[in-house]
Amino acid sequence: MAYQNTETRSDSTSESQHDNALSIPMGEYETRRAPYFWERKLLTKLMEYVGGPPVQFELWDGSQVRLDGTSPRFTLGLTDPKALYHLVANPNLAFGDLYSAGRLTVSGDLTELLTTLYRATHNARQQWPAWLEKLWANHAPRSTDLTEARQNIHHHYDLGNEFYRLWLDTAEMQYTCAYYETPDLTLEQAQLAKLEHVCRKLQLKPGQTVVEAGCGWGGLARYMARNYGVKVHAYNISKEQLAFAREEARRQQLDHLIDYVEDDYRNISGQYDAFVSVGMLEHVGTGHYSDMAAVIKRSLKPEGLALLHSIGRNRPMKMNAWIEKRIFPGAYPPSIGEFMGICEEGAFSVLDVENLRLHYARTLEHWKERFEAHLDEVIAMYDEHFARAWRMYLSGSISAFETSSLQLFQVVFSHGENNAVPRNRKHLYESPAAPESV
Amino acid sequence: MAYQNTETRSDSTSESQHDNALSIPMGEYETRRAPYFWERKLLTKLMEYVGGPPVQFELWDGSQVRLDGTSPRFTLGLTDPKALYHLVANPNLAFGDLYSAGRLTVSGDLTELLTTLYRATHNARQQWPAWLEKLWANHAPRSTDLTEARQNIHHHYDLGNEFYRLWLDTAEMQYTCAYYETPDLTLEQAQLAKLEHVCRKLQLKPGQTVVEAGCGWGGLARYMARNYGVKVHAYNISKEQLAFAREEARRQQLDHLIDYVEDDYRNISGQYDAFVSVGMLEHVGTGHYSDMAAVIKRSLKPEGLALLHSIGRNRPMKMNAWIEKRIFPGAYPPSIGEFMGICEEGAFSVLDVENLRLHYARTLEHWKERFEAHLDEVIAMYDEHFARAWRMYLSGSISAFETSSLQLFQVVFSHGENNAVPRNRKHLYESPAAPESV
Repeated sequence: MAYQNTETRSDSTSESQHDNALSIPMGEYETRRAPYFWERKLLTKLMEYVGGPPVQFELWDGSQVRLDGTSPRFTLGLTDPKALYHLVANPNLAFGDLYSAGRLTVSGDLTELLTTLYRATHNARQQWPAWLEKLWANHAPRSTDLTEARQNIHHHYDLGNEFYRLWLDTAEMQYTCAYYETPDLTLEQAQLAKLEHVCRKLQLKPGQTVVEAGCGWGGLARYMARNYGVKVHAYNISKEQLAFAREEARRQQLDHLIDYVEDDYRNISGQYDAFVSVGMLEHVGTGHYSDMAAVIKRSLKPEGLALLHSIGRNRPMKMNAWIEKRIFPGAYPPSIGEFMGICEEGAFSVLDVENLRLHYARTLEHWKERFEAHLDEVIAMYDEHFARAWRMYLSGSISAFETSSLQLFQVVFSHGENNAVPRNRKHLYESPAAPESV
Repeated sequence: MAYQNTETRSDSTSESQHDNALSIPMGEYETRRAPYFWERKLLTKLMEYVGGPPVQFELWDGSQVRLDGTSPRFTLGLTDPKALYHLVANPNLAFGDLYSAGRLTVSGDLTELLTTLYRATHNARQQWPAWLEKLWANHAPRSTDLTEARQNIHHHYDLGNEFYRLWLDTAEMQYTCAYYETPDLTLEQAQLAKLEHVCRKLQLKPGQTVVEAGCGWGGLARYMARNYGVKVHAYNISKEQLAFAREEARRQQLDHLIDYVEDDYRNISGQYDAFVSVGMLEHVGTGHYSDMAAVIKRSLKPEGLALLHSIGRNRPMKMNAWIEKRIFPGAYPPSIGEFMGICEEGAFSVLDVENLRLHYARTLEHWKERFEAHLDEVIAMYDEHFARAWRMYLSGSISAFETSSLQLFQVVFSHGENNAVPRNRKHLYESPAAPESV
């Protein structure tokens, strides 16, 4: 298991009164003494600094702390004094860690709580004093150089195909934003619609060649080969994903059209009619955007089209510390300006930018529903700490897209001199992108 | 006449052998002596530095200069030695000035020549020595502060409505990129399609309010009022355009829905369901992009949509010196990154970027055809120098879009927190945007 936790945990299996089916390990933390006056005061200050959201705390002795005049919609339980100090000193990191460890519990819907906290904090932080901004600053994210990139990707994507199979779509194991062409689509339909939407944006024709940077479980490559008759070179540095991708291509008798390459995007060779990367740019890091531009520049034919699909931001912001440390080491979603910097670096002509932010919120809701439905299996595969961490990650991500803390940009571009580009985008909408059923 | 020329010109009316219907004023320049050796050498170096395009020079004595081994497709005539020195010392500025003055003549199609020169120079300039880059550097563009902005706009847009009426579309006097939804559209159809496309992107509903920054002759405001039943506050600082706009709104009985305001965009007040600006950002200047962001931020309702339509670049580049000096004082087309900087500044969420570059090349072709058909009237209104300058401007602009030196970006965005945004772009393509006939 690649997932690493820095907290020492007990093996307690006592059930939380708040969190369904997940236990709270409290054995080794002090829980008997009454909270001190200043501990209650610290929580009050914390609530004030995050904009006075409608929450209250319930401490280890059962006593409660709330701001005067508020009507709490959520109760956050703290199981021990140390949890309280962690939370106050570094809420960005500690909230997720304590929740994962069962030392911070939530009554009320976790996603709704996070959305409420995001919105309150977003407005309140304009007024933060400098010392607080500094105290709560996010840590420096990990490197995305060649060696570290392999470790980063291994940490997340090599958790095991069986784990991801529990809650991703059954159609093509897509671990990126789906496209809800109509709001009622199933996850499977919406993921296939996303693949179709991407292919249409690239205007693929039979016999063309495509290079894919970061292919996940290989679903886009297979979709392109199967439905558009193109040859795909698909790069990935996750061994687990590649094993699945190759097996699945053989099963679908597409292996003559697809070459899954275990290598870093920086080592892409050859020239192709299309360059595509769905959900990898988040792992590239701004320090390597010029590498990325150079790779696309040299591997895209003069009349080729390129598409980058990535989580992004409205303006440059540090990555959420907990997500970067516990879930996605090295990850950084570019701001729209930083994203365009890649295109400027390559002197590309940006043809089309689409923002699918709310589609990602919906995708994550679908994932989370399935994740919760398979919670017992997740716990059996890993443990409760892992399951709680992933619940936090999925809920937090829904909130982040819902509150516009995160965006999802699909960007189509070409070499600057290419005049054989699509003149409009009608071809994306001439027929439904989603299959009627899957 | 706002158009200013710094060259002293003669009143000669002798016809050029190259340029249809435009005379070459040569009276006061030395044209009798034979070219010196080094003058021919300078032209050879010039041709080498711009990448050896298939052109030759014909000097004032009828002698020719070409690079060894080239087969010229174009002949550039130089009528006097001083023209030669101007051209070599500062081709960016002198090419247009000398052409306007009739001291540089062109045999062959002007637009094709400029396209050829753009492409050759684009490739060759990577190898330019630093001293040459410095020698040929563009000048600093004019200020776009409040007072200068009025002068800049007056210089171009107050040339006279009768002049623009000669060659713009007869439907709504649109002096911005049209939308050739299908390649066979007339200029009138394509301009109306552009207005419709913009309205669809803004998802206008009857009774909503719109503010427009830089409304030209008011066509978009009238289209919105007429076809979408919205109320429009349209700002402009060109008196001539506003006079036309108001008269036309009265004629169409739309004046109860439209308030044409003679004021700078920085003075926009109120809050609106939509913010739109088509072809004004080019005149704002990067130093005022934060003003622009602040204006949009305060004047857009929480659930409103904003659209900026502007000429742009693939990467930051100085404005063409001749165009900035002679045609569009203060103009600067932002790079896609600089454009997105406005959105980042306002913490906006970028929803949709479309690049209509090749539509602008087509629009300009349509304008130039009509301009040439009305050349006698243009000369009668102004003079031959003016007519030649505008021919150069229109041809140069076709080339700039054709060669991808310029882009046309239409950007839709919202406040970051707005979740009432369009989920996809199908609504843009459900029926033709262009009328069947105009």
